[in-house]
Amino acid sequence: MIGFSSNVGVMASLTNSEEQQSPFVLSNSWPQTQDSNKKWKGLGGFVLVHAGAGYHSESKAKEYKHVCKRACQKAVDQLKSGALAVEAVAAALVEVDSPFTNAGMGSNLNLSGEIECDASIMDGKSLHYGAVGAISGIKNPILVANRLLTEAQKGKLSAGRIPPCFLVGQGAQDWAVCHGIPPCPSEKMTTKFSLSAYKRNKRKMELAEKMDMGHNQAKRRRQSSGNENGSGCLDTVGAVVVDLEGNVAAAVSSGGLAMKHPGRVGQAAHYGCGCWAENANDMISYSTAVSTSGCGEHLIRTMLARECSSAMQSEDAHQALLEAMQNKFISSPFLASEDRVLGGVIVLRCCRCVEAQPSQNIQGLLVEFLWSHTTESMCVGYMSAQDSKAKTHISRLPPGTVPGQSLAIEGGVCRLMNSSD
Amino acid sequence: MIGFSSNVGVMASLTNSEEQQSPFVLSNSWPQTQDSNKKWKGLGGFVLVHAGAGYHSESKAKEYKHVCKRACQKAVDQLKSGALAVEAVAAALVEVDSPFTNAGMGSNLNLSGEIECDASIMDGKSLHYGAVGAISGIKNPILVANRLLTEAQKGKLSAGRIPPCFLVGQGAQDWAVCHGIPPCPSEKMTTKFSLSAYKRNKRKMELAEKMDMGHNQAKRRRQSSGNENGSGCLDTVGAVVVDLEGNVAAAVSSGGLAMKHPGRVGQAAHYGCGCWAENANDMISYSTAVSTSGCGEHLIRTMLARECSSAMQSEDAHQALLEAMQNKFISSPFLASEDRVLGGVIVLRCCRCVEAQPSQNIQGLLVEFLWSHTTESMCVGYMSAQDSKAKTHISRLPPGTVPGQSLAIEGGVCRLMNSSD
Repeated sequence: MIGFSSNVGVMASLTNSEEQQSPFVLSNSWPQTQDSNKKWKGLGGFVLVHAGAGYHSESKAKEYKHVCKRACQKAVDQLKSGALAVEAVAAALVEVDSPFTNAGMGSNLNLSGEIECDASIMDGKSLHYGAVGAISGIKNPILVANRLLTEAQKGKLSAGRIPPCFLVGQGAQDWAVCHGIPPCPSEKMTTKFSLSAYKRNKRKMELAEKMDMGHNQAKRRRQSSGNENGSGCLDTVGAVVVDLEGNVAAAVSSGGLAMKHPGRVGQAAHYGCGCWAENANDMISYSTAVSTSGCGEHLIRTMLARECSSAMQSEDAHQALLEAMQNKFISSPFLASEDRVLGGVIVLRCCRCVEAQPSQNIQGLLVEFLWSHTTESMCVGYMSAQDSKAKTHISRLPPGTVPGQSLAIEGGVCRLMNSSD
Repeated sequence: MIGFSSNVGVMASLTNSEEQQSPFVLSNSWPQTQDSNKKWKGLGGFVLVHAGAGYHSESKAKEYKHVCKRACQKAVDQLKSGALAVEAVAAALVEVDSPFTNAGMGSNLNLSGEIECDASIMDGKSLHYGAVGAISGIKNPILVANRLLTEAQKGKLSAGRIPPCFLVGQGAQDWAVCHGIPPCPSEKMTTKFSLSAYKRNKRKMELAEKMDMGHNQAKRRRQSSGNENGSGCLDTVGAVVVDLEGNVAAAVSSGGLAMKHPGRVGQAAHYGCGCWAENANDMISYSTAVSTSGCGEHLIRTMLARECSSAMQSEDAHQALLEAMQNKFISSPFLASEDRVLGGVIVLRCCRCVEAQPSQNIQGLLVEFLWSHTTESMCVGYMSAQDSKAKTHISRLPPGTVPGQSLAIEGGVCRLMNSSD
């Protein structure tokens, strides 16, 4: 008989280096017993999603949580039907790419009043990657990124041409339509909410520019820097998944910063910056998956997804993420001139584990999952295939701390057990 | 009296791990004597450029070398007039972005018969970065990337908006024109050579597709993979520079693969993949600058520029680059499914040095520079501000080795001396 059990617990929110002992004994090396591969085949896994690092008012909390719940359920449905992590993470993204979040339909409008989206996906098993940048007229840009990934896995095109992993703009839209992903007219992409936010932002910008008149260029720029990008508008979405075979995958989707210049591409389309997924191998002990959210330029220049993934090879996941967020993001030499560094990450790592007092027949995957942000809040949801419904949570910076200079970090552990006795 | 001398010598071409002793005593720590900053101010520096990793026939060698020479001279002119490394590297790129190379005007045409270019630049001093992708109608796309970098350094835009570091497509062209960079009509961007190559490639592609008819999709793709992207068409250009204050900078510019899909963006516009520059600091001993060339998708997925830069912190530069090219490129787990991995890099690292038997008043910058490629050949040029003219060289894979599976590596050292006695 094969049975599974799961155990999910949320760690306390910690903003210092307080140590947290994992309740499980970890086996960093992947056991290669004769029948281990057979044992580990199974339906199930774990998903962690977020609906943006930004500001989530109490009044909107319910809707954000609902989006996260639906996304978790979609990923779990896929995992239960035998899908690999990469397929499940794409399914989660399509759901969290809702008109309510800043991704796909309903995204922030750019300076010209148009929607241009970025999205990418990475498969930790094949290490393949697909991305689109500044794409218009596609409801769920993650579907195009995912299709680029799967097409590239098929090998070369005619005459030995190498298939693209990153397409932008009109070319990306044309490629999508050619590959059966339907276009969505501009008027349908824009929601009432995104349009009214655009009008509000435009008035604010015009007012700021008027007030700045008479100052010289340098002064104008410095003075306006107190008037930050509303951190409420940074709600890029993302997901990380592990399946029961231990494969990981990560994805990210974003409408980008409000009032961005047309053609601007953020971290969500940037390799190593928006998402990262890498299965454990001979060189690395843990499988890791990361998805980032926040100010694209800061996340690009710090290559935050890959930095967090590398950090996760340290023994203490919580401490490693805390240090990565502090040293590789808030205090990064790459952002030395920035006074506020706004962003968030969701991280998952897993390894095979045995019970502290194991019976020969019980082994499992120990999944450690964390989120951290320097924005005022971040809305997350998570679920294992053994849970009846997703848990959601709005993480907030500790009272009295400054967004962009402080961070919150929380997380939990989930044990996916596979018993064959 | 302040005087400079330089000493440039080319190492032998090595394809194994044979050790090479540097003739200088290196001081990995940057001396912080009271007047060291004053001492190190000066006009001068060193530049290394390349006109593409690909295939350079003997008949065209002269023209490629000439382009490299002119580019070196431009950078040196800038350095002598007191420009920083980042300004000199941009000047070199404008020159090597010639109609003859696959960058800017005269680039490879895409599937639709249009030119779309990628370019990026990184300043090791400020760690700022600017990039454009799939941009049309601009003669020298590196000028747009450079302008993005300098604009971002000025701080935030009105209403606290964060300036972009990466723009693509029409939005990038519009931004460039708004910032005083003149558009160039399509018919002027295309040269006779690029147009005839397009027609030849199109016929080849149509023939390959005809021949493939009747085979199923999987078979078709696999069979055509023997028919690689002509490695003659991979000639992305790049440059790396160090100025006499020890600041480094790197830049890259590319028209992309011939017959690429419209909207495809390659490594030249990708952070960490096309170029990298990082001054020495408390954490890293050497200043490093890297620029890559070759198959964009391979260079993106291996993040080759940043990997080579990290590797350059090892003691033996030659051995470190050899291992990076072997382990992080040819045998990279990220390219496990590829049978041939085509690319090249130019690398520069420097540190302050003292003579083996120093007088108190003689110190200098020791610049180690290398190039390595898995393509059939790579055309490079290099020059210090004390040289009367640039040296150029076409590096070739050793006879009997297979492109995409073997590598060539060469380089040299240049000592920029500053004597105040």
